[in-house]
Amino acid sequence: MSKKLPTRQEDYSAWYNELVKRAGLAENSAVRGCMVIKPYGYAIWEKMQRQLDDMFKRTGHENAYFPLFVPKSLFEAEEKNAEGFAKECAVVTHYRLQTDPDRPGKLRVDPNAKLEEELIVRPTSEAIIWSTYKNWIQSYRDLPLLINQWANVVRWEMRTRLFLRTAEFLWQEGHTAHATATEAVAETRQMLDVYAEFAEEHMAVPVVKGVKTPNERFAGAEDTYCIEAMMQDGKALQAGTSHFLGQNFAKAFDVQFANKEGGLEHVWGTSWGVSTRLMGALVMAHSDDEGLVLPPKLAPIQVVIIPIYKTGELDALLERIRPIQQGLVQRGISVKIDSRDTERPGFKFAEWEMKGVPVRLAIGARDLDAGTVEAARRDTKEKLQLPLAEVVDSVDKLLNDIQLNIYTKARAYRDSHTTRVETYDEFKAVLDGPGGFVVAHYDGTSETEELIKEQTKATVRCIPLNEPDEDGICIVTGRPSTRRAWFARAY
Amino acid sequence: MSKKLPTRQEDYSAWYNELVKRAGLAENSAVRGCMVIKPYGYAIWEKMQRQLDDMFKRTGHENAYFPLFVPKSLFEAEEKNAEGFAKECAVVTHYRLQTDPDRPGKLRVDPNAKLEEELIVRPTSEAIIWSTYKNWIQSYRDLPLLINQWANVVRWEMRTRLFLRTAEFLWQEGHTAHATATEAVAETRQMLDVYAEFAEEHMAVPVVKGVKTPNERFAGAEDTYCIEAMMQDGKALQAGTSHFLGQNFAKAFDVQFANKEGGLEHVWGTSWGVSTRLMGALVMAHSDDEGLVLPPKLAPIQVVIIPIYKTGELDALLERIRPIQQGLVQRGISVKIDSRDTERPGFKFAEWEMKGVPVRLAIGARDLDAGTVEAARRDTKEKLQLPLAEVVDSVDKLLNDIQLNIYTKARAYRDSHTTRVETYDEFKAVLDGPGGFVVAHYDGTSETEELIKEQTKATVRCIPLNEPDEDGICIVTGRPSTRRAWFARAY
Repeated sequence: MSKKLPTRQEDYSAWYNELVKRAGLAENSAVRGCMVIKPYGYAIWEKMQRQLDDMFKRTGHENAYFPLFVPKSLFEAEEKNAEGFAKECAVVTHYRLQTDPDRPGKLRVDPNAKLEEELIVRPTSEAIIWSTYKNWIQSYRDLPLLINQWANVVRWEMRTRLFLRTAEFLWQEGHTAHATATEAVAETRQMLDVYAEFAEEHMAVPVVKGVKTPNERFAGAEDTYCIEAMMQDGKALQAGTSHFLGQNFAKAFDVQFANKEGGLEHVWGTSWGVSTRLMGALVMAHSDDEGLVLPPKLAPIQVVIIPIYKTGELDALLERIRPIQQGLVQRGISVKIDSRDTERPGFKFAEWEMKGVPVRLAIGARDLDAGTVEAARRDTKEKLQLPLAEVVDSVDKLLNDIQLNIYTKARAYRDSHTTRVETYDEFKAVLDGPGGFVVAHYDGTSETEELIKEQTKATVRCIPLNEPDEDGICIVTGRPSTRRAWFARAY
Repeated sequence: MSKKLPTRQEDYSAWYNELVKRAGLAENSAVRGCMVIKPYGYAIWEKMQRQLDDMFKRTGHENAYFPLFVPKSLFEAEEKNAEGFAKECAVVTHYRLQTDPDRPGKLRVDPNAKLEEELIVRPTSEAIIWSTYKNWIQSYRDLPLLINQWANVVRWEMRTRLFLRTAEFLWQEGHTAHATATEAVAETRQMLDVYAEFAEEHMAVPVVKGVKTPNERFAGAEDTYCIEAMMQDGKALQAGTSHFLGQNFAKAFDVQFANKEGGLEHVWGTSWGVSTRLMGALVMAHSDDEGLVLPPKLAPIQVVIIPIYKTGELDALLERIRPIQQGLVQRGISVKIDSRDTERPGFKFAEWEMKGVPVRLAIGARDLDAGTVEAARRDTKEKLQLPLAEVVDSVDKLLNDIQLNIYTKARAYRDSHTTRVETYDEFKAVLDGPGGFVVAHYDGTSETEELIKEQTKATVRCIPLNEPDEDGICIVTGRPSTRRAWFARAY
């Protein structure tokens, strides 16, 4: 832990990469573009999963599991979707290896074990799931069908970064079917709200809810809604998407239902997902040059206790510390006592700072004798003397404060990096200056969007929901516009 | 629900296949050998996962996630393991599809996107994990390393059956590393105990703990321990395995640690896993000709309430039922009220019987007026009148009784289908008669084991642990033997 991280100022990208590794979140693997999610990183992901899963279930969804592989012919059925994903996928062509006759001890593909039809490792599961829904849906009584899947998916990315863009990643994908367009749109919006609530309340990451332009839309959707977050380097990150699929997949896979009047109609679909990419957002939104800063609600360890002792006194001190630990655990707070005899307190402080544990308690016999405990907040680095008698209440309150403070700070950063501009020059100046979201009128055409992207590397992140119309003129073409879009350079 | 299942007597295999589908557990997919786990089946699997995960964490393990793909060269590193799995695996050879120039709208593999090295979809993760452990382990302070992964794996099975043998399945795989052989063996045995406890206490399936013969050992292990269960057709099912890997993988992947004395040693490994196969065991161990019988501890719905009412009276009745539901839920019991207006009670009874819900409450206004509730046990089909005032306590007790009764019944079946024999004729007579475990002396050689398998289709399921030595003679060769093995025909 002695080596310092690169600072965010020096090299944000190097800071992120180093931090992810040094905090024990993830590392690159022997497989190009695939990561290993290490125990500490996976523990955070598990907390995210548990919370999201509870929210999905509360909104009436059930989990199921569909095959890893998509036969090529199913993949072809929804044309836009196939085109969107065919360029970057892992293709299984054979089902057996054999000993290589020319190289003893080596294996090769058995040329006699070629599949009749290639299998694609799912980049997303609409095709396999909608081909299944055909048999599950006959009547309006089978609707709505509200299903979620936790799974791994693979997209053959050429340039990868831990969590942010990896060939294999973990995610959840909801796939629902409804009797009417209205219900399907309501579901799409509901799940967007669930994602936004999760991001803000649990990740402490403020997000803008909006709709994507056709250019940025999911291949096969009628509308893609998203939540967009702002990272500390002024770049945006898409943190979740929810798609209104219209009847596209229902038509591609012939999923029809008998309505109450006895007529046959195609069902209306949605899909929505968040992935381990959220881990990247979590790291980049809050952390500092000393390491991770985790919101208490997602921290695997919320409180670390470091005993401060002289040689030979550890056991006696631990005896006195354990009731404090028990009190915290009874309050539902996760606590680790770092009683390693091989490391000094300063080393431990730095290590748990790197790992983003929200509250550190340094406890020595003298403190206990004096009826106090020294607490340190990871977010502000402030130190506090807590009365021993109230330590559980105090720590509980501290955790709530930290959760709120982290959010407030991220929100202030986001707000101070959201700039309304009226001209293309201003637009470019913001991007090349402070960065962040640039809120501007444009004429709504793909051409202008493309031009802006080419010239500035900024994309339309979304057209925010619930914002009033406003007359204006496009910063590029001068044509009329009625809504501002939020642009940014993005991950 | 009108159509009856085939009976177990008539056709056990057809009964199983039909039941799995009709109870909504799983179905075959568009991908050869891969299943879709339906919401009700997945809900049971989630309960299994949650329980096992808690048990793993209580014994000090952490979860992590490793890549889906294993590069061929890593696969080759541990020779026996590679041989054992190379025959049946999905091989990714390309990373892109393209539009087929000869067939508009169709896709084909892009011949220019061939991988330099083939990737195997993991059939098990020892290779990829041990290649990672090499970097995680330097010193005795890094040990033991206690990691588990929840994942999907693929083995290219030619003959598949829902849950019991599928090309893709879900499982957990523990992979641990230790400083000494003693510790690694203790871990292997501990996890076997965890599996046995889970099977008996939660699945209500009695199991025999034992060690596999070299013929049946995991490829790459020094010793494979297993738990073996007995199904209602007299066939055994291997429900979990725990492997002592010795230093095989440490040597193959050069994983060494500096011991306390400063010397370098290879670490000692274990791996252990259970899979969605447990779902098959659960179904086959308890269910009857009317459908599933689920142990309360794993039932997604423990109590179903069926309102009994005349037209127009449903809402008023539901008002009176809801406090009962709430009382049960407060006790931690999962309850579903089946208030569908489109189906009659008899239909609902049959449907929830098929789905194995442990307790059914049929509640009408007259019962409530009389201060009683009619309960029906799924396991014994017994009906009971419960006093309304004590309904929560009574149902709670009933659920405990059912959990115990299901176990006791399965245990009695297993015990009455475990036969000690002294001759090969008796051995064959048992297998062709009642079936079950046949407990016999054999000379311990692979040749005799093979011969028995060829002639009777029975294999050595295990040599049970903790059984005293006993002098005897091999039922086939007459050579001396000191331990009895448990044989059976098996899934």
